[in-house]
Amino acid sequence: MELLKDKIVNEGYWVGEGILKVDSFLNHQIDIELLDKIGAEIAKIYEGEKIDKVLTAESSGIAIACAAARHLGNLRTVFAKKNKPITMKEDAYQAQGMSFTKGNFNTYVVSKRFLDKGDRVVIIDDFLARGESGSALCEIVKQAGGEIVGYTAAIEKRNQGGYDKISNMGVKVQSLAVLGDCNMETGEINFL
Amino acid sequence: MELLKDKIVNEGYWVGEGILKVDSFLNHQIDIELLDKIGAEIAKIYEGEKIDKVLTAESSGIAIACAAARHLGNLRTVFAKKNKPITMKEDAYQAQGMSFTKGNFNTYVVSKRFLDKGDRVVIIDDFLARGESGSALCEIVKQAGGEIVGYTAAIEKRNQGGYDKISNMGVKVQSLAVLGDCNMETGEINFL
Repeated sequence: MELLKDKIVNEGYWVGEGILKVDSFLNHQIDIELLDKIGAEIAKIYEGEKIDKVLTAESSGIAIACAAARHLGNLRTVFAKKNKPITMKEDAYQAQGMSFTKGNFNTYVVSKRFLDKGDRVVIIDDFLARGESGSALCEIVKQAGGEIVGYTAAIEKRNQGGYDKISNMGVKVQSLAVLGDCNMETGEINFL
Repeated sequence: MELLKDKIVNEGYWVGEGILKVDSFLNHQIDIELLDKIGAEIAKIYEGEKIDKVLTAESSGIAIACAAARHLGNLRTVFAKKNKPITMKEDAYQAQGMSFTKGNFNTYVVSKRFLDKGDRVVIIDDFLARGESGSALCEIVKQAGGEIVGYTAAIEKRNQGGYDKISNMGVKVQSLAVLGDCNMETGEINFL
């Protein structure tokens, strides 16, 4: 998605440890016009597929998942909670993933009421890097007996292991902007 | 907003300690069609106002804020992070608020790059109850030297103190569905 790639080149920056910040338009401040176009682009990927639900993880996946779900025909969208809130008293699907940006383990939690056996689910995230949240979401759909139609991140860093991790679970990964080798010293950003 | 009120009556339920759960359509699973209508309704409240930005807090405010921002003409939307991520190295505005649903204190953080002096800001949240996150967001706009055009929650529980707390900061509070006295034993829900 050229518009997203341009935005990454113009506004993205590296903050060390392989972390690309896109906080001016995607995951702290959100460019709402771009968000809508990202949603439309994701919908194009899954055109013609039968999909029951969109699944993402709080927090930064929510805006993108909702935009995509609207373009996919107002699909129900579920976001996994990070760590079970004390108000969630019912049974839940759970899977763990390390957060490298927060430096802790998250337990991703989805109430059993919102994922059904046989549900055909598209998983959406803002970033695919090491694939920790992404694989936890895949694991949750599998626990529910659902079928993963595909996984899409807005931005993917192909060389950080997440693509392999999720592909190896038998899930088709299709992201909008895929970064290859980048030079974090010079700030150079290359797309595959 | 009648549609939202109907949804609350039909799908909301009390889980004790004055907490109303609306997780089937607003803050775990999201009804995307309803979300769009909530966004349009919020935009109506602020019709004709000059607004620079929409501010909310992660996680449950994000979807609503983005929907409203789209209907307000694709306004830039900022969501306050709960607790400063290790990747946020720059100066930030910060304010504290207690989370009753998670049982801990949150420090709401917004990078100084995304709120400017003089910015006219609409603050949006999913719930207004005790006003902890809401007043923290107001505090952050004030720290930035911005002007709060108004505060809107999708659902407000008028008798839990948040309305007074935010009004007393000189901020106009206008929510979409305002609950008065409710009978949590019988599950009775009353709107003002």
